[in-house]
Amino acid sequence: MTPAVVLFSGGVDSSTCLAIARQEGFAPHALAVRYGQRHAHELGAAERVAAAMGVPLKVIGLDLRAIGGSALTAELPVPKDAPIGGSIPVTYVPARNTVLLGLALGYAETLGAQDLYIGVNAIDYSGYPDCRPAFVQAFEALANVATAAAIEGRARYRVHAPLLTLSKAEIIRRGAQLGVPYALTHSCYDPDSFGRACGRCDSCRLRRQGFAEAGVPDPTPYA
Amino acid sequence: MTPAVVLFSGGVDSSTCLAIARQEGFAPHALAVRYGQRHAHELGAAERVAAAMGVPLKVIGLDLRAIGGSALTAELPVPKDAPIGGSIPVTYVPARNTVLLGLALGYAETLGAQDLYIGVNAIDYSGYPDCRPAFVQAFEALANVATAAAIEGRARYRVHAPLLTLSKAEIIRRGAQLGVPYALTHSCYDPDSFGRACGRCDSCRLRRQGFAEAGVPDPTPYA
Repeated sequence: MTPAVVLFSGGVDSSTCLAIARQEGFAPHALAVRYGQRHAHELGAAERVAAAMGVPLKVIGLDLRAIGGSALTAELPVPKDAPIGGSIPVTYVPARNTVLLGLALGYAETLGAQDLYIGVNAIDYSGYPDCRPAFVQAFEALANVATAAAIEGRARYRVHAPLLTLSKAEIIRRGAQLGVPYALTHSCYDPDSFGRACGRCDSCRLRRQGFAEAGVPDPTPYA
Repeated sequence: MTPAVVLFSGGVDSSTCLAIARQEGFAPHALAVRYGQRHAHELGAAERVAAAMGVPLKVIGLDLRAIGGSALTAELPVPKDAPIGGSIPVTYVPARNTVLLGLALGYAETLGAQDLYIGVNAIDYSGYPDCRPAFVQAFEALANVATAAAIEGRARYRVHAPLLTLSKAEIIRRGAQLGVPYALTHSCYDPDSFGRACGRCDSCRLRRQGFAEAGVPDPTPYA
């Protein structure tokens, strides 16, 4: 089986992306980054989902709190019940997907993989610049000049973003068909001390609405 | 003064790059990454050089050992007295400069800086793919689609690589003119327990030869 590196957070999108990589014929290697998220629930979900799907998971530590500039890494409040769309929200982490894809590229090179998967989404996304097609294309161009494997002709990297043009409901329908264990996934930016989703941040509201529109029962325990 | 982010390791090249950024009219902010180097001497040098030059230094932790694949991050031996040039050496760290520039980009965005400096060098370099002009150009293109600042029109990022076409001797002559405190810098991939340079790895030999060719006294204490 051809290996592929899948950026993975344990949320709906990256868990679906993992299932799609497998359906497309790859042996997926999940890569999670402990980048100073406000809480560890996201990584706990990543471990549970990867184990349930029988996929190896690598976790890399990166202290993005040293940079700050985001509600997800610094001590800024997570917005609740705020309008979605329009300006870029404070949960944007500066240059995050550039760094994450860079780490995926390094991991791919050590595995001998040429395929990177990232679950970015340009439709129901919350306005993040590094979730757009132009970003994905620019990173693929970079990957093919940045690595030993590429310049020695051993690799031609491809960045797969299979969710790019899907709505949240379409993602969930696709993942439900593929058997993604959504009950184990985690989306909330600001869960309570029991790990229950707040139901009110952008991420919770996109998730909840996606399940409703998909006609798939939402297994999330909201606080 | 206009801020700029300078990737910084405390070695000859990045210290010279820091001095050039200042000479070019920027207020440099040094960014070092503790990425699982074999030893802490490099970061100690970064702190000493930045302090001597009066430049603020930010250090980010990143566990690249989780990926491995390099003599600088995994338990592979550092080559000694090996031919320089030709194939890419085992001290290559997969996708390292992609990740480092990604972190510099994130830091720049939080500082409101649009200028990134990286001390890569395509002449006396040891064969690293991510030290070539094509890499620098591809990253600049990526930066301008990857960030909130760029897509909102608040930033047009530039990646400066002022050492790109200089020989090591030219770098050292330039830095000596600018007063770079080379005695505080560190280059060796494999120092002894006192932090003294081995004199035999690629990095030591390029440094030693550079000082000799530049006609600048080499202040390095070799083991």
